[in-house]
Amino acid sequence: MALFKKIAIIGSGLIGSSLARAIRANDIADKLTLIDMSEDVCKKAVELSLADEITDDAAQGVISADLVILATPVGTFEEIAKQIGPSLLPGAILTDVGSVKETVFKQLEKHIPPSVIVLPSHPIAGTEHSGPQAGFAELFIDRWCIVTPKPDADLRAIERLTSFWEACGMRIELMDAAHHDLVLGITSHLPHLLAYTIVGTAADLEDDVKTEVIKYSASGFRGFTRIAASDPVMWRDVFLHNKDAVLEILQRFTEDLTALQKSIRRGDGFYLQEVFSRGREIRRHIERLGPEGYPSPQQMNKSDD
Amino acid sequence: MALFKKIAIIGSGLIGSSLARAIRANDIADKLTLIDMSEDVCKKAVELSLADEITDDAAQGVISADLVILATPVGTFEEIAKQIGPSLLPGAILTDVGSVKETVFKQLEKHIPPSVIVLPSHPIAGTEHSGPQAGFAELFIDRWCIVTPKPDADLRAIERLTSFWEACGMRIELMDAAHHDLVLGITSHLPHLLAYTIVGTAADLEDDVKTEVIKYSASGFRGFTRIAASDPVMWRDVFLHNKDAVLEILQRFTEDLTALQKSIRRGDGFYLQEVFSRGREIRRHIERLGPEGYPSPQQMNKSDD
Repeated sequence: MALFKKIAIIGSGLIGSSLARAIRANDIADKLTLIDMSEDVCKKAVELSLADEITDDAAQGVISADLVILATPVGTFEEIAKQIGPSLLPGAILTDVGSVKETVFKQLEKHIPPSVIVLPSHPIAGTEHSGPQAGFAELFIDRWCIVTPKPDADLRAIERLTSFWEACGMRIELMDAAHHDLVLGITSHLPHLLAYTIVGTAADLEDDVKTEVIKYSASGFRGFTRIAASDPVMWRDVFLHNKDAVLEILQRFTEDLTALQKSIRRGDGFYLQEVFSRGREIRRHIERLGPEGYPSPQQMNKSDD
Repeated sequence: MALFKKIAIIGSGLIGSSLARAIRANDIADKLTLIDMSEDVCKKAVELSLADEITDDAAQGVISADLVILATPVGTFEEIAKQIGPSLLPGAILTDVGSVKETVFKQLEKHIPPSVIVLPSHPIAGTEHSGPQAGFAELFIDRWCIVTPKPDADLRAIERLTSFWEACGMRIELMDAAHHDLVLGITSHLPHLLAYTIVGTAADLEDDVKTEVIKYSASGFRGFTRIAASDPVMWRDVFLHNKDAVLEILQRFTEDLTALQKSIRRGDGFYLQEVFSRGREIRRHIERLGPEGYPSPQQMNKSDD
């Protein structure tokens, strides 16, 4: 027997289409509906046979689903909640895959009937590519999924939802939503902001220097361009919705960068070396945990980032 | 017949020891001397049989070498030049592997007799690991080596030196030293500075948050920690010696970051999306060039960063 009778995924980009593939590969639902507002994306999803039903009508598509997953940029959640709220099955679980949890949950909750159980999730998985053709079923395997239920959330529903993510191959962590937003602000949002900034700075260079920057990008820049190739709309929404945590962390970062800048100007090699030496320490911890953030024998032989 | 009668490498870290291995693997010299000021490093180099002669006496080690390669942090170059200057063979080529070229060349030149040909090089190759045990002969294969001769430099010597790097597997680019320092400032020095900064910012967090940052580092942070694990002394010297270019680029970067910060604070999604969209453009150029910065058929199938 499948875990869910009907799963409806709203949004058929990298994550939504990967989820569709994972759900089918692992027989997680009796019926799978894929919803996307874009006609082009729906057409591609049909070509790729990603689901039993593919539609651009969200209110219609979620009917009788016992699991609904929002896989669109977080800025769209409130509008979608308004549209689907009245059609949701009482007792259904509504989750999402967004990188921001606290503000987004509040916006969702306003438009979702109390009979529906809202349980935000953040599967930490992705690539820099977008669209239904970029997805693959194995995207979630051995990755962390952070679930951020409210303290009074229904325990059986939490269990059903975590079983779902586990069936996709993920490891589960429960966390407070605000804490999630702070931690991801550092591990994900700030790195993306810096990557976008440095690529923008490079793009403003004179053409001949820009050509060389691209040519010699292997010396450090290249990794930043991979991150900065991530979906612009998704990331715009992340920064708009995790504003407070990002600004707080950015403030700390800027202070630290200014201190390094000052020590370069002054020629203070002692300070530079002291700060730089801390990098190895953190890296050692990360290497000890393995590429996915936990030690596991099969990870040891995998190639690194 | 080998390209050089005797090559002396000063510094037996990642690059120096990789060079020693590449020289032997490709029969580039009749005799190879490896010099390191550290007794421990010399001992390891002996254990690894990295060269015909291994010594901590630089002035002695360079005698009769027709190619001398400085592979120590750039901050040591002036002192080493003083030590080895009087022992260098007239007509010998003195090169280096440093990430900064202009200021460093001026410091070298002061202490090297005019009969010796100083030709700075920068092989763009490396890993985050250090020490003689971290080196390997293949490190240089298919990578760029930038050579920055003065306009009046001896052409036959340039040719001999570029043949050397080619024999190690590298592709050659000639460039003006100041221009090199600007380009590498963007592609390499600024990315390293940002990576060191964000890792430092994370290291200052409360212990529980720090643990989670390490655990969920796959979401972007992890790539930064790899860069920030690079040798602290080497990078201290890079920033002290490429001060002007780094401060100039850092200034532009900070302006761009401040503009993004302001637009996050104001909720200006239009500006964020516009900047973020430029990332994909640059990435496309880089992907078209392939991982090493030039298109080549065998590169197309290689895994990316």
